[in-house]
Amino acid sequence: MHGFSFRVRYGDTDQMGWAYYATHLRWFEIGRAEMLRSLGRSYRSLEDEDGVRLPVREARCLYRLGARYDDALRVETALAERSRVMVSFAYRVVREEDGALIALGSTEHVFMNRDGRPMRAPRGVEELLDRAPLAPPELLAALARR
Amino acid sequence: MHGFSFRVRYGDTDQMGWAYYATHLRWFEIGRAEMLRSLGRSYRSLEDEDGVRLPVREARCLYRLGARYDDALRVETALAERSRVMVSFAYRVVREEDGALIALGSTEHVFMNRDGRPMRAPRGVEELLDRAPLAPPELLAALARR
Amino acid sequence: MHGFSFRVRYGDTDQMGWAYYATHLRWFEIGRAEMLRSLGRSYRSLEDEDGVRLPVREARCLYRLGARYDDALRVETALAERSRVMVSFAYRVVREEDGALIALGSTEHVFMNRDGRPMRAPRGVEELLDRAPLAPPELLAALARR
Amino acid sequence: MHGFSFRVRYGDTDQMGWAYYATHLRWFEIGRAEMLRSLGRSYRSLEDEDGVRLPVREARCLYRLGARYDDALRVETALAERSRVMVSFAYRVVREEDGALIALGSTEHVFMNRDGRPMRAPRGVEELLDRAPLAPPELLAALARR
Repeated sequence: MHGFSFRVRYGDTDQMGWAYYATHLRWFEIGRAEMLRSLGRSYRSLEDEDGVRLPVREARCLYRLGARYDDALRVETALAERSRVMVSFAYRVVREEDGALIALGSTEHVFMNRDGRPMRAPRGVEELLDRAPLAPPELLAALARR
Repeated sequence: MHGFSFRVRYGDTDQMGWAYYATHLRWFEIGRAEMLRSLGRSYRSLEDEDGVRLPVREARCLYRLGARYDDALRVETALAERSRVMVSFAYRVVREEDGALIALGSTEHVFMNRDGRPMRAPRGVEELLDRAPLAPPELLAALARR
Repeated sequence: MHGFSFRVRYGDTDQMGWAYYATHLRWFEIGRAEMLRSLGRSYRSLEDEDGVRLPVREARCLYRLGARYDDALRVETALAERSRVMVSFAYRVVREEDGALIALGSTEHVFMNRDGRPMRAPRGVEELLDRAPLAPPELLAALARR
Repeated sequence: MHGFSFRVRYGDTDQMGWAYYATHLRWFEIGRAEMLRSLGRSYRSLEDEDGVRLPVREARCLYRLGARYDDALRVETALAERSRVMVSFAYRVVREEDGALIALGSTEHVFMNRDGRPMRAPRGVEELLDRAPLAPPELLAALARR
């Protein structure tokens, strides 16, 4: 999986002393943007040059351990599933210090054009996703479990 | 289901012109806080007086329609599932103007004491949840579908 | 001044147990949107129908008392200064329970057209601002003091 | 001044296509945390080991250029003013690509103990601030101008 490191900021915490639960979706967003960049394209260039947007159709997060202020974390991102009209990513958030698992999750996206209509993934996007790391089966299994 | 009305604020939107996808989890938080208040207790009093916290173990959101700046929305909240050690809530976010479904979702919580240890729900919390509206079967079915 | 009531949400707090300091700017945004609405127009309609935007050129906040989770607050908004090319608003945030002053502040905006160029305020906006409540001198004085 | 690089994330943008105006205060928070770290201590260790907190008494931001999604920015932080009971920092946010000035600002903090009472800066904090870079006169002048 692709990894990207960052820290928990003061504004991310809540009065329980942990990162607020919506913050994790932001980390997932950072994870997928940086994974795409590592493959050679920025998500911005996909929007600007290919005219494609990837709005989220579903998001899910399993919270395992609270993340504290200033914790150095790493979000790991990989491709979970794809078709001509959608793509989903799987994520793990781990604490750099000891590898402890903070959270895991997934997001499912549709390809949409500038007018807000569903579209097939443009060729450039298809080629990009061909090179994406695949989510390990254990992660997909953990996400499938209810 | 219990309903609470609010508006999409400028800071909630992103450059796609819709409410950013993590914002929906904030709406769910507002929904469950206001549902508890409508039952006679604030979530703050549960933390302060009963010494119980309800950290989130899992969150899920299905996005159906984008919400635009200044849209008047209503978050509807109900009890989905409970046991002695956990509780889950189900949510629907609808547009006030025409009742259009913006999103649906769920959050699952554990009961935790001040030291961060799992605990059984205090009696006061049990009695509160006894009075909570129950999620309609169609909503639970829509959430169970993958 | 125009008043609008709201509550501090869990996601607004930080680990100090108070609303995070950037949240206050969000409250100011809510205050000016609701003040405009009370005058008969929504800020959305100004953007959509008059083609004018009011990006912020300067923001300032003086923090007096921490706001806690679930506190019922009221943001009070009034016009501070105007010219043909700019407008500024002044704000007070008070606790509903006892009127305690949480914060005061100001934001200064320029009129900008859809292409991102400065413009003179359209007639409809001028007429709207003609009806806006004026900031009391004590508030302006408190904001002027350094 | 101390510099720290980061990117504008999707969740930071609003429907105008720029980073929302409260986000800049978050960048300032990141700037001062990373400046302290570069001097040898984390802000977390100041809270945990020295029992001191630095709540914000005043914040100010002058917005010069909008920051777009995925822009690589750098927040520059320096000491602006200090006394035994307070400290203020000055900030500049620049675009990495061309050095364009996005925003400048300041925050003023008081030293507070765990009980929420004002205190004199502990010796460890004094020594840390002794080593902080000083804000250049031009920045202080730009911030003083009204």
